[in-house]
Amino acid sequence: MPRPIITLTTDFGDADGFVGTMKGVILTIARRASVDVDLVDLAHAIAPGDVRQAALVLAAAVPYFPPAAIHLVVVDPGVGTSRAAIAIAAEHGFLVGPDNGVLSLAAGPAGKRRVHRLESAQHRLDPPSDTFHGRDVFAPAAAHLACGMAIEALGPRHPAPIELALPRPAVGADRVTGEVIYVDRFGNLTTNVDRALLARFFAGAVSVTIAGTRIDSVSRAYGVTPAAPLVAVVNSWGWLEVACPGGSAAARLGAGRGTEVILERPGPRPIPH
Amino acid sequence: MPRPIITLTTDFGDADGFVGTMKGVILTIARRASVDVDLVDLAHAIAPGDVRQAALVLAAAVPYFPPAAIHLVVVDPGVGTSRAAIAIAAEHGFLVGPDNGVLSLAAGPAGKRRVHRLESAQHRLDPPSDTFHGRDVFAPAAAHLACGMAIEALGPRHPAPIELALPRPAVGADRVTGEVIYVDRFGNLTTNVDRALLARFFAGAVSVTIAGTRIDSVSRAYGVTPAAPLVAVVNSWGWLEVACPGGSAAARLGAGRGTEVILERPGPRPIPH
Amino acid sequence: MPRPIITLTTDFGDADGFVGTMKGVILTIARRASVDVDLVDLAHAIAPGDVRQAALVLAAAVPYFPPAAIHLVVVDPGVGTSRAAIAIAAEHGFLVGPDNGVLSLAAGPAGKRRVHRLESAQHRLDPPSDTFHGRDVFAPAAAHLACGMAIEALGPRHPAPIELALPRPAVGADRVTGEVIYVDRFGNLTTNVDRALLARFFAGAVSVTIAGTRIDSVSRAYGVTPAAPLVAVVNSWGWLEVACPGGSAAARLGAGRGTEVILERPGPRPIPH
Repeated sequence: MPRPIITLTTDFGDADGFVGTMKGVILTIARRASVDVDLVDLAHAIAPGDVRQAALVLAAAVPYFPPAAIHLVVVDPGVGTSRAAIAIAAEHGFLVGPDNGVLSLAAGPAGKRRVHRLESAQHRLDPPSDTFHGRDVFAPAAAHLACGMAIEALGPRHPAPIELALPRPAVGADRVTGEVIYVDRFGNLTTNVDRALLARFFAGAVSVTIAGTRIDSVSRAYGVTPAAPLVAVVNSWGWLEVACPGGSAAARLGAGRGTEVILERPGPRPIPH
Repeated sequence: MPRPIITLTTDFGDADGFVGTMKGVILTIARRASVDVDLVDLAHAIAPGDVRQAALVLAAAVPYFPPAAIHLVVVDPGVGTSRAAIAIAAEHGFLVGPDNGVLSLAAGPAGKRRVHRLESAQHRLDPPSDTFHGRDVFAPAAAHLACGMAIEALGPRHPAPIELALPRPAVGADRVTGEVIYVDRFGNLTTNVDRALLARFFAGAVSVTIAGTRIDSVSRAYGVTPAAPLVAVVNSWGWLEVACPGGSAAARLGAGRGTEVILERPGPRPIPH
Repeated sequence: MPRPIITLTTDFGDADGFVGTMKGVILTIARRASVDVDLVDLAHAIAPGDVRQAALVLAAAVPYFPPAAIHLVVVDPGVGTSRAAIAIAAEHGFLVGPDNGVLSLAAGPAGKRRVHRLESAQHRLDPPSDTFHGRDVFAPAAAHLACGMAIEALGPRHPAPIELALPRPAVGADRVTGEVIYVDRFGNLTTNVDRALLARFFAGAVSVTIAGTRIDSVSRAYGVTPAAPLVAVVNSWGWLEVACPGGSAAARLGAGRGTEVILERPGPRPIPH
């Protein structure tokens, strides 16, 4: 049997040992069951409490893992409150984390999910703290799943997990008005216009206007027009992205999450006067 | 036999390849002995040379690992000087690092430790540099321990390793005066008042004053009083902590390491005039 | 057979999940071949697009890994352009990444390398994106090498990979003029004067002048002259380095990459007036 995989996504950073502590809990439980686990870090520099950022990162990464992988997410501003702790058996693997929407973009179609609450006392550390469920609730659940436990053993069904709502683009006859939903390390600006929408409305011929700057077409890759300071591409997550090759589009445009992006079928350029 | 675990804690960051190089040394030695190792990162964004930060992070994480784990720490401003390099067989596992106090908080009671100096030439890289003992001295020692070598083989006993002194709270009849000893990624302020002291003196009823702001009670969790900008909790490390749910208490209060914290039995509030 | 090792070096940081996604691709391919892999992070906080930084980090780390290790590097500002994707069978292991010089310092003597282009369609994700070859081209190639595939199967020979040119020191009769080529997390300044040059010209007796400050000798280690604010050492990579024990030489001197460094045989000190 191949070794189970557990990925970890948190807003814990790399200074405080919180991620490592969760791994200690996982390895302790797995060792007891004589199971070897592959632990894979997905992202730990998620902005503190930024559920949407983590949800998008997770959704983009999960399809590239074997379908039996377990994805543990701890971006959990509501720790210790009444928010549920859940595990989801989803199309692309198992997801474990707080029920605040962070798992929902990765969880695939609702009809193909089984969602359970993490309420089994024997599958938590005893007693769990009210301030670090990553260590005391989520890591043990992920470890037990990795050891082959059925998701049903973790707790009762959870009928209606929270779905994260991404802002939707406004689609008109000749234009689409979207917005930036994600800014990556390079300052690339991911918008909420996906490949399918782009193809359906514009068949490749489209101008992109953002922060007062117009880009005349969508390129295949970043570096194909060496002189262009800004390019629009369909990025590796499948969304329209505005990038600045060799620089940061976010810095150059003063743009960030929420900045409006307008797509239009290209017309005649206004004559400069 | 389960695979040995080696954790790594450093102030090396993630830009220069120093941590990866140490892992290369460990894997090279372990492969030679046909041993597979689980390498776990605890923290690498320790502030440069911050022995106390690393000592606290290590002490909080070590109990969550299997007791045979080996914990390698390289926060070593004295590299190349006369400070000793040591390994400790402690209650909760093996600790390897410089003798500057960084291991002492995790090492448990002195009576249950065996401490040895890393002086065996055949268990170092040859010749070791004077600038990177993480690679040349500590990583080889951890690898040899992981391969089953006895700690005694690494060098002679080291009778009196340096103990890190945390500032102690001043305990009076009706008040305790402590201070902030750690600030985490979220800006949460860990104080030197531990759960036991809190329970002994206040039985749960206590006000916390820090940087001119008074918090009227200690909460069970961060988010239980949604309107409160600041809360005091006993955190997951077992210390009293001041936090700002959804924000940074450090930024809000202008507080940091060394900021005074006063705990009092709650009396009548001063009448505002 | 020992588990194959794949190291990863990128400018992807720890926020966006790009590194984790590459690991998902590797593990998916390796699982299919029933191969367990050790994944080791070398560095992910390489400055965006900084080929030289990554090349130096890689060259310093690779010799400390077992010679069968596979080193995957994605610092790839030219992704999607005509730059080749390559794998190198080199003296110290396999190297996989873009042909922009990033692999060249680690690749060892040209006569001992075999270089192939990653053009085999069946060893890429299908279809590969034009914006994330780390996921779609480089990670699959590294995974296939880890599973024992011959490098020749990845594509045709690549006759003349790009060599990164480091600035060379100017060597005169009594002085060497070099420059800072790397600044690490501690603010230590690595110069382009290597141990061999230092030994050949100065036999240990040398003064180092940088940013208007003169250091009278090269020390064995950082902390040997406690009063000295700045020291010059031969660092763990084998280069002359200027450091500020307990602080940052970069900050103290206002120095950085490109700052001139002058080495001279020590003469009489100017008499202060």
